[in-house]
Amino acid sequence: MTTPPTEPTGVTKVTCVGAGVIGGGWVAHFLARGYDVTAWDPAPDAREKLRRLVDAAWPALIQLGLAEGASRDRLTIAGTLEEACAEAQFVQESAPEKLDLKRDLLARLDAATPPGVVIASSTSGYPMTDMQTEAADPSRLLVGHPFNPPYLIPLVEVVGGERTAGEAVEWASRFYEVAGKSVITMDREVPGFIANRLQEALWREALHMVANGEATVKEIDDSITEGPGLRWAFMGPCLTFALAGGEGGMGHMLDHFGPSLKSPWTRLEAPELDAALRDAMVDGCDEAAEGRTIADLVAERDQGVIDVLRATGRLPKGGAE
Amino acid sequence: MTTPPTEPTGVTKVTCVGAGVIGGGWVAHFLARGYDVTAWDPAPDAREKLRRLVDAAWPALIQLGLAEGASRDRLTIAGTLEEACAEAQFVQESAPEKLDLKRDLLARLDAATPPGVVIASSTSGYPMTDMQTEAADPSRLLVGHPFNPPYLIPLVEVVGGERTAGEAVEWASRFYEVAGKSVITMDREVPGFIANRLQEALWREALHMVANGEATVKEIDDSITEGPGLRWAFMGPCLTFALAGGEGGMGHMLDHFGPSLKSPWTRLEAPELDAALRDAMVDGCDEAAEGRTIADLVAERDQGVIDVLRATGRLPKGGAE
Repeated sequence: MTTPPTEPTGVTKVTCVGAGVIGGGWVAHFLARGYDVTAWDPAPDAREKLRRLVDAAWPALIQLGLAEGASRDRLTIAGTLEEACAEAQFVQESAPEKLDLKRDLLARLDAATPPGVVIASSTSGYPMTDMQTEAADPSRLLVGHPFNPPYLIPLVEVVGGERTAGEAVEWASRFYEVAGKSVITMDREVPGFIANRLQEALWREALHMVANGEATVKEIDDSITEGPGLRWAFMGPCLTFALAGGEGGMGHMLDHFGPSLKSPWTRLEAPELDAALRDAMVDGCDEAAEGRTIADLVAERDQGVIDVLRATGRLPKGGAE
Repeated sequence: MTTPPTEPTGVTKVTCVGAGVIGGGWVAHFLARGYDVTAWDPAPDAREKLRRLVDAAWPALIQLGLAEGASRDRLTIAGTLEEACAEAQFVQESAPEKLDLKRDLLARLDAATPPGVVIASSTSGYPMTDMQTEAADPSRLLVGHPFNPPYLIPLVEVVGGERTAGEAVEWASRFYEVAGKSVITMDREVPGFIANRLQEALWREALHMVANGEATVKEIDDSITEGPGLRWAFMGPCLTFALAGGEGGMGHMLDHFGPSLKSPWTRLEAPELDAALRDAMVDGCDEAAEGRTIADLVAERDQGVIDVLRATGRLPKGGAE
């Protein structure tokens, strides 16, 4: 590929293609971070919807703190895709989740965007290898997968396809960081990336439970917000489960609850918990703990839960006023 | 069964059997809520471990606000199981997750506890039907499944076995509420209950990813805490996904992303998204929304994410100080 013409820190003009919930969320995010944003969407009512979405998001973004010079007035809505991309220094594509559409659109974006400018797709799960097939320069096409709403949830998963240049992946990861996101850069394509595989597993089990009449939608939602969801806001599932092992951490937890993996909890078949996987989990938790002891993590978790309960106005029933 | 001798609101003496991470967490919870707690555990170092656990939890419980008269001095550690149960008005069993052990222990607890007093098991997944087989009075045995740590995470899932009296289930659900918990009462036994099936599906997928080298433990944890976990602290997966459908809510979301269910995201096979399941999800979301519009929910979610980010010291990089 041609080297991106602008340094990640030098970008001032971002183009967002597709202005639905995700595309519009990206527009709000980039505006709040002080970029000039050009948006394009073929829907006839896209302009009004996009304004409405940005206006709805803006009070939240003011609370978070706008970047210097950030303004909703710096949004331009282009009349054509070509016009939208003509001066782009970065392009974020957030079109509907249809493979053929994405393929064609990415080829058109590639044709309309200055050489070397990185083009990221918000796809929830298509591998870029499958989407970059029609583009003249596939090397600058990659996935930058956000979470809803992109203007508040920090995570972006960045991964290239077989024909993506490593340089483009590095550039995009750096650019997203500069633009205020938390980035996980993946070195291989996995369908659904990381967080979507995890939340999709949970979601599929939820759908099974509703389909079987085992739980209602409200019970499913309550079971997360009153239960594990409180922990996951600040401590991931691995470290959280390590604490279920008491002073023995992840090793003790796997030895104790490992046999439960064979239980018919969830319709997802568990992997074999062999020595290699056990070690990978234990070592991985040690690494993720970054020197914190189990006692440190327990104290951190406790404070985190209290802070989250307080912040969301939900001290446990019977708790302090 | 004999009617429980004490009203849920009249309970003052709680017995906790098993004083590991979960049992000890229950001890801390009940002490903080102002109960006299008697604990028993056969491990030789149980006494010290339990004191240490309660001491570690206490500062958090002070922050949450202790009930009137709550004191760590109201903990008695009994020398025998029989002594521990002799005056119990409620028993919470939190022994290791082994079916034979649970069966025998519950029979012994039943024999040692005054007639009619409800005995709950903290089991992570065994159906009570399988655990109540040896007890003389199985009708008062039920599951009261907590989340770690029980002194901070509000959720308890309550469900009886085939031989459990409905009256015992009602009593326990009411008692837990009085004792400051958020209760989901299930009307049928499902292995792993609700929240465990959901988090277990996610967990199994995480184990698969580590086993296959697709993601590290740290990436898995970060992908949740920087992504969906921020939302799940206050809005469950169903309502959260409904907001991915924009102004069309869950119906639009399923129509748009439904085909993705066929994608090889996660190793869990998805259910058939037929009209019945689609309707159940849409109607369930309407019910869970309790009159709130999509715009209301978006505003609530945005404020929630901001509050959680603030509370946990993590405004997005580049955000306001």
